[in-house]
Amino acid sequence: QKDVYPSRKYSLPTYINRKDPVIYSTDLKAPLEEALLDQYEKKGFLFLDHLFEDHEIADMQKHMQCLRDSEVIKQREESITEVSSGDIRSVFDVHKLGGFFQKIAQDPRLVQIAEYLLGDRVYLHQTRLNYKPGFRGKEFYWHSDFETWHVEDGMPRMRALSMSITLTSNDHQNGPLLLIPGSHHTYVSCVGETPENNYFSSLKKQNVGVPDDASLQSLIEQHGIEAAVGQPGRITLFDCNVLHGSNGNITPAPRSNLFFVYNALSNRVGLPFGNTTPRPEYIAARKSIKAL
Amino acid sequence: QKDVYPSRKYSLPTYINRKDPVIYSTDLKAPLEEALLDQYEKKGFLFLDHLFEDHEIADMQKHMQCLRDSEVIKQREESITEVSSGDIRSVFDVHKLGGFFQKIAQDPRLVQIAEYLLGDRVYLHQTRLNYKPGFRGKEFYWHSDFETWHVEDGMPRMRALSMSITLTSNDHQNGPLLLIPGSHHTYVSCVGETPENNYFSSLKKQNVGVPDDASLQSLIEQHGIEAAVGQPGRITLFDCNVLHGSNGNITPAPRSNLFFVYNALSNRVGLPFGNTTPRPEYIAARKSIKAL
Repeated sequence: QKDVYPSRKYSLPTYINRKDPVIYSTDLKAPLEEALLDQYEKKGFLFLDHLFEDHEIADMQKHMQCLRDSEVIKQREESITEVSSGDIRSVFDVHKLGGFFQKIAQDPRLVQIAEYLLGDRVYLHQTRLNYKPGFRGKEFYWHSDFETWHVEDGMPRMRALSMSITLTSNDHQNGPLLLIPGSHHTYVSCVGETPENNYFSSLKKQNVGVPDDASLQSLIEQHGIEAAVGQPGRITLFDCNVLHGSNGNITPAPRSNLFFVYNALSNRVGLPFGNTTPRPEYIAARKSIKAL
Repeated sequence: QKDVYPSRKYSLPTYINRKDPVIYSTDLKAPLEEALLDQYEKKGFLFLDHLFEDHEIADMQKHMQCLRDSEVIKQREESITEVSSGDIRSVFDVHKLGGFFQKIAQDPRLVQIAEYLLGDRVYLHQTRLNYKPGFRGKEFYWHSDFETWHVEDGMPRMRALSMSITLTSNDHQNGPLLLIPGSHHTYVSCVGETPENNYFSSLKKQNVGVPDDASLQSLIEQHGIEAAVGQPGRITLFDCNVLHGSNGNITPAPRSNLFFVYNALSNRVGLPFGNTTPRPEYIAARKSIKAL
């Protein structure tokens, strides 16, 4: 398969123009208002409030707490814990735990939007529950998810999106998700080689597949930065190639979210374009692909 | 000398009520409006815009850049450089470089305010120029300056204040100074022992003399957090015991400021209350005390 988005291959960073649509469907019966679609096309992300009822959000928060406190969950290979405290940071494959989170990931209100934007039936490429602690929450550096999914997972084209449902209040001070509007139109081909088993460390701190300083400076000068602040239940829906990151968090307020990645069925992953060993199934669905 | 603000001495954190005034002068001829004085009394800090003219700020920015580029400055013991890049992070004792920065530190507009609030003649306890880089700017954890000045420098009472003149734009995203309004009324006696030569590392990352999680949580729940955002030239004036810190900064926008600590002449430092070797003169004036 031809690599139309090469990265980690050249000694200098290069820009590649996006070769794929942002919104794949063209029919008029969209599940989102036109203003929101315009915003998504232009910025590469949008915010949805009130898609879930208050009692649904409260349920998510309750189930999040249960998972967090569960010793069984902590022992799963798919749970990332902090070395020093042993606390859970991420629980991958939450949709495979059955019941509650599976139902949310398959919720028609979310799936219909994903199907419309991607113009195809969709499946879950990755799901997880994230806990970011207060006081000593670490930053996450700027990156495009697609860059990693392409190089390390073999996702061919930009035809995937993420939905992050926040379960906590996010303000400017507790390290909210920061996005560069419009950055999804450009693919920054990054410098650096991928070490084997890169995901062991990259899930905690990404060192390769991050854009160079000059590219970031230029994109941010051009487009600015927008922060995903808001109340529990707010959904941040973002294109697979929008650059995002977050600062650390010294405030006591933690940040938690439910994170679902929807990929078009026609865009399922092949061999990694970086020629590395494919990452585990819980990070990138390869065998367990099932249209929702 | 009796230690009225013991810290790093007990195995559990304790609160000690402030035993000193916040504003020492009581006469009516204040150099600040009453609303600002009220704010300072209640919150422990205030912001001053337009105290300097635009051309004065532009001059400060120019001189900052010169210092930053100077090899001579880089070689000074009083300059803190970054291990990896060799770039200057802080230049201490800028008022001793003669000329430009000395004049600003002694500017009557600043000194009169310091004298009024501290009810005494004042001297410079510490001065510095700070450069916080973009992209990989590190966080600075919550602390009270007074706690360190008391334990490590021997400053007897809460009768000092800081003025930070920002030389860059600060927004919510580039890791602005965060302050806990009202926290200056409480002294958090911290847990932990001071290592010898603690300042070598504490100027980069403070590990002792930081409040415990429960104290921070409680103070922030009670008082909230305020961010010192604003344009170049804005002065943040804050009491020596107000808790403050800052998140890291992954944005390209650096943060720089001029930082002056004024102490009351009657409050000059003695032997450190933590029984450690006094820190160097450029971090805490001991011999070179001169009323302004």
